[in-house]
Amino acid sequence: MLTAMTETNPYADVLELTHPPTQTPARRQIERALVDWMHDTGKGAAEITVCALAKRAFVARSTFYKNYAHADAVLDVIEQRILAELCDAGDAMRALARGGASATESYDAFVRVLHRHEDEFRLLLVELPSARFADRWKRMLGYHFWERLFTDGAREQRLRPSTVNRALVLEMIASAFISGVRFWLMTPERVEIPEIKALILRLIRDIDEVW
Amino acid sequence: MLTAMTETNPYADVLELTHPPTQTPARRQIERALVDWMHDTGKGAAEITVCALAKRAFVARSTFYKNYAHADAVLDVIEQRILAELCDAGDAMRALARGGASATESYDAFVRVLHRHEDEFRLLLVELPSARFADRWKRMLGYHFWERLFTDGAREQRLRPSTVNRALVLEMIASAFISGVRFWLMTPERVEIPEIKALILRLIRDIDEVW
Repeated sequence: MLTAMTETNPYADVLELTHPPTQTPARRQIERALVDWMHDTGKGAAEITVCALAKRAFVARSTFYKNYAHADAVLDVIEQRILAELCDAGDAMRALARGGASATESYDAFVRVLHRHEDEFRLLLVELPSARFADRWKRMLGYHFWERLFTDGAREQRLRPSTVNRALVLEMIASAFISGVRFWLMTPERVEIPEIKALILRLIRDIDEVW
Repeated sequence: MLTAMTETNPYADVLELTHPPTQTPARRQIERALVDWMHDTGKGAAEITVCALAKRAFVARSTFYKNYAHADAVLDVIEQRILAELCDAGDAMRALARGGASATESYDAFVRVLHRHEDEFRLLLVELPSARFADRWKRMLGYHFWERLFTDGAREQRLRPSTVNRALVLEMIASAFISGVRFWLMTPERVEIPEIKALILRLIRDIDEVW
């Protein structure tokens, strides 16, 4: 009997980004104020002073500094909160054995995250595109698809596990997915929501089957 | 007998960008000099003076101005030359009836364009990413996939032509393709070339079949 080499998920380091500080009323106000300010002005987080941001959030400067080192750190935490929820949403994907059901569950959970954070997604993908956020999200998608397709449990159920070009394919899948969300945020009138679900699930099924 | 409404390819305007000025020795020197300068300095085309660029290209300033209005116009022409070749490469895609053969032909032609212009692709996708180039290339990919999938000729051979989310899916396909090329340029050691061809052709076959 051969003992399969257990490979480590090369995207696992993204999980380190899924432990944002606990949400509190003060943090919520500060984070909300930053999103609103960036949306209103079209300027990046580095361009607002802590003084102005604290004022906008109705908190004292000392309260700000108890929670964040600077304004860009606020954006970093906002991204981490979304990543943590995306991580939970993708969890169902792991269970390749459940096939379509696991993909459906993950898709529905993702849509809830998207609606809950639509303003933030709009900001980070469309209004002031954050390469850092897109990169982190790509790695999160890479993490979940890797879990789904290449862990030992997944391999047992597959006829031809692909061993080459994994990183390339995961990059392509993640780019397609994120660009699709961006497209929907930019031109919602050109998107038929019910058909998207069918499309994404078919895409995942194809990936399961051929790769 | 019903007369099918002929729909216009919504990406056809990209074809206007495929008529760059005829190549001449002077233009070749100037375009080459700009690519080299951008590669060496990591700076954008708008940051070099015409004087410096003409000097680097060993041409007179008057020669420069006979051909281009300013340095960024040189980059625009470089992009258009690549687009014109990508357009030719994609031409075989139109013939859905030929199935895999047409996709193979297009893929091989694309790889030749990529190798011929590797420095320019590296510059425009990796070193100094050009949103303009990526957007134009996406539209070119959209154009060819539209021709393949949605023209009257194509429709006759298909059981269930998709009428919704076309723009969304074409955006996702194009993003996946371009991100794959970028990944290969950035980390060639992580890519197995022969398998990529099989992968892309399988992807196109899936698109043909399910959409």
